[in-house]
Amino acid sequence: MKVSIERAALLKAVSQAQSVVERRNTIPILANVLIEAADDTVTFRATDLDIEVVDKAPAKVERAGATTVPAVTLHEIVRKLPDGALVSLTEEGSSGRLTVEAGRSNFSLATLPKEDFPVMASSEYTANFSAPAPVLRRLFDKSKFAISTEETRYYLNGVYMHVSDADGGKVLRCVATDGHRLARIDAELPEGATEMPGVIVPRKTVGELRKLLDDDDAQIAVSVSETKVRFATPAITLTSKVIDGTFPDYTRVIPQGNNRKMEVDAADFARAVDRVATVSSERSRAVKLSLDEDRLILSVNAPDSGAAEEELAVAYGDERLEIGFNAKYLLEIASQVDRENAVFLFNSAADPTLMREGNDQSAVYVVMPMRV
Amino acid sequence: MKVSIERAALLKAVSQAQSVVERRNTIPILANVLIEAADDTVTFRATDLDIEVVDKAPAKVERAGATTVPAVTLHEIVRKLPDGALVSLTEEGSSGRLTVEAGRSNFSLATLPKEDFPVMASSEYTANFSAPAPVLRRLFDKSKFAISTEETRYYLNGVYMHVSDADGGKVLRCVATDGHRLARIDAELPEGATEMPGVIVPRKTVGELRKLLDDDDAQIAVSVSETKVRFATPAITLTSKVIDGTFPDYTRVIPQGNNRKMEVDAADFARAVDRVATVSSERSRAVKLSLDEDRLILSVNAPDSGAAEEELAVAYGDERLEIGFNAKYLLEIASQVDRENAVFLFNSAADPTLMREGNDQSAVYVVMPMRV
Repeated sequence: MKVSIERAALLKAVSQAQSVVERRNTIPILANVLIEAADDTVTFRATDLDIEVVDKAPAKVERAGATTVPAVTLHEIVRKLPDGALVSLTEEGSSGRLTVEAGRSNFSLATLPKEDFPVMASSEYTANFSAPAPVLRRLFDKSKFAISTEETRYYLNGVYMHVSDADGGKVLRCVATDGHRLARIDAELPEGATEMPGVIVPRKTVGELRKLLDDDDAQIAVSVSETKVRFATPAITLTSKVIDGTFPDYTRVIPQGNNRKMEVDAADFARAVDRVATVSSERSRAVKLSLDEDRLILSVNAPDSGAAEEELAVAYGDERLEIGFNAKYLLEIASQVDRENAVFLFNSAADPTLMREGNDQSAVYVVMPMRV
Repeated sequence: MKVSIERAALLKAVSQAQSVVERRNTIPILANVLIEAADDTVTFRATDLDIEVVDKAPAKVERAGATTVPAVTLHEIVRKLPDGALVSLTEEGSSGRLTVEAGRSNFSLATLPKEDFPVMASSEYTANFSAPAPVLRRLFDKSKFAISTEETRYYLNGVYMHVSDADGGKVLRCVATDGHRLARIDAELPEGATEMPGVIVPRKTVGELRKLLDDDDAQIAVSVSETKVRFATPAITLTSKVIDGTFPDYTRVIPQGNNRKMEVDAADFARAVDRVATVSSERSRAVKLSLDEDRLILSVNAPDSGAAEEELAVAYGDERLEIGFNAKYLLEIASQVDRENAVFLFNSAADPTLMREGNDQSAVYVVMPMRV
């Protein structure tokens, strides 16, 4: 193998690949990136056996070939090379080394045989569709905070992406929950997605996927089967196993009858929650919301360290209500609101509370109360 | 006590105070800041028993008084209050609570009696002088990287500030070393400093002091005794015990006869060292410098992972030399160079190497070689 490649293109390709590689590997080959050169293109492939990412970069290929080198080391080297450098990657078949050269810098990296690199089995996808990057970004960005970290409830360790019925017809929906709070985000159903099976996209995949979605103009090719999901741009293909489990019936969790409505400036609300929570050092800090006509009092009482109280003007016309929440959950939900106003719908102090942005039904959040 | 104070002034004063407070305290009062209000000034005092910081802020004092509250909580609250807010601090004598109010926010913090707060014993200082902030900043910034972290060699856990003889007469000198490398930085001797005893300023004090030195126009009042050192601006006074030990005779460590001179662009050198060190994952990464006429080859050989080599144009007219160094130490020393060129003076592969900036003798670094 002998190729020349622009440092910037190489860095971009290797960055995405090395981020999939797990830092602590018991299987040496999994720390490596598979480099394949052919037809003016170099392909970089990395995997943790659950996720596989394939990056393509244009290059001048003098001699085709393939090998594997440690992903993190290669990334570090390329990152430290001067901007604008032309990098050559050379492997003599028998040496067991890949030479990385740029200007007066010369590196030689230990290789492992390309035959040992585990390539993910290809899959028959039952649905293929295309979605604009900003649409997928919104679906995952607004739901991922609610992903559970409890390993015993593995079926909650991801975002449930599926097709669902909403008021306006079928939608592409992402749901995440950890049992304490839930996020349900809808988007217009892309053409070709109707037959998509519902899949639970693991947390790590959601994180890796995020890097493909920065370009507002990009169209993402999405393929889904019962066991795998694939997201692709022209340069990058991310394939991931999905969580083998059944996502619980979340619809029962979303309250329908909540009709005590409070409307509040989302940023003001988040800042006030953040401030009153300061006085308590406990992990599960409870904030009490006391609602009266057009007035919200947020309060925290921590007998050892102190107390805090803050008043906010809100739109609320129902009877008096006192309800408590975990401060962290309230903050996270309030910070999902892009528009000015957050709308809270309460039932009683013991029932789940619903939150949405203005009258928008396409992003709905549920949070369980806490006794205060 | 009842005072009103601008949020910005309060934040600045409390910031410096809370940073001295240790996060894990077994003695509750040490987590607190002592607030004293009198004569249009509020004083904030915090200590870890080794360092005491006193911050003054202008305020409207309606009722004088003093109390103590948790420093970190107070700081968090003030930080989260909106910019421009006017904050009132009120304590009713018997309540055991300090009320912090701003706009519609109201906090009540548990207090501890002011009598319990340990105030550092005052000291007779044997030398008092004044030094511009940039001079002190240079003395400590350029030496602190070499402070030892080995607790058994406690007398190396700080910067040795003392008066010394140099070519041009007496100087104010800061020295730090961990046995592997050494930094010796000189500045013009301020008036009144001649009689100053040499003191070892602890690492934490050096860190806290740094925050007083950002203002280029500030004059810092420095007072030194055998056991204490004090640095003061009009608003902040930082008093610290010094390390009770004898700093070793560092002069013997500084080589005098090194005459194999290499001159190199400091930034190029640092980047090259950084790059070649990438291939080795070991903690004590050895970089080999191979010198020939006007040519330096930096190389690293890590049998398991690979090898790296980089060539640099340097000014060197002496005979061939091969010498190894810890990559981290070389990097740290090279990054101290503000000017373009770093001058290295070698003797042999087994002897300490000296580094300075151009012909400037006021900042000298020594680094021990490593066998490669």
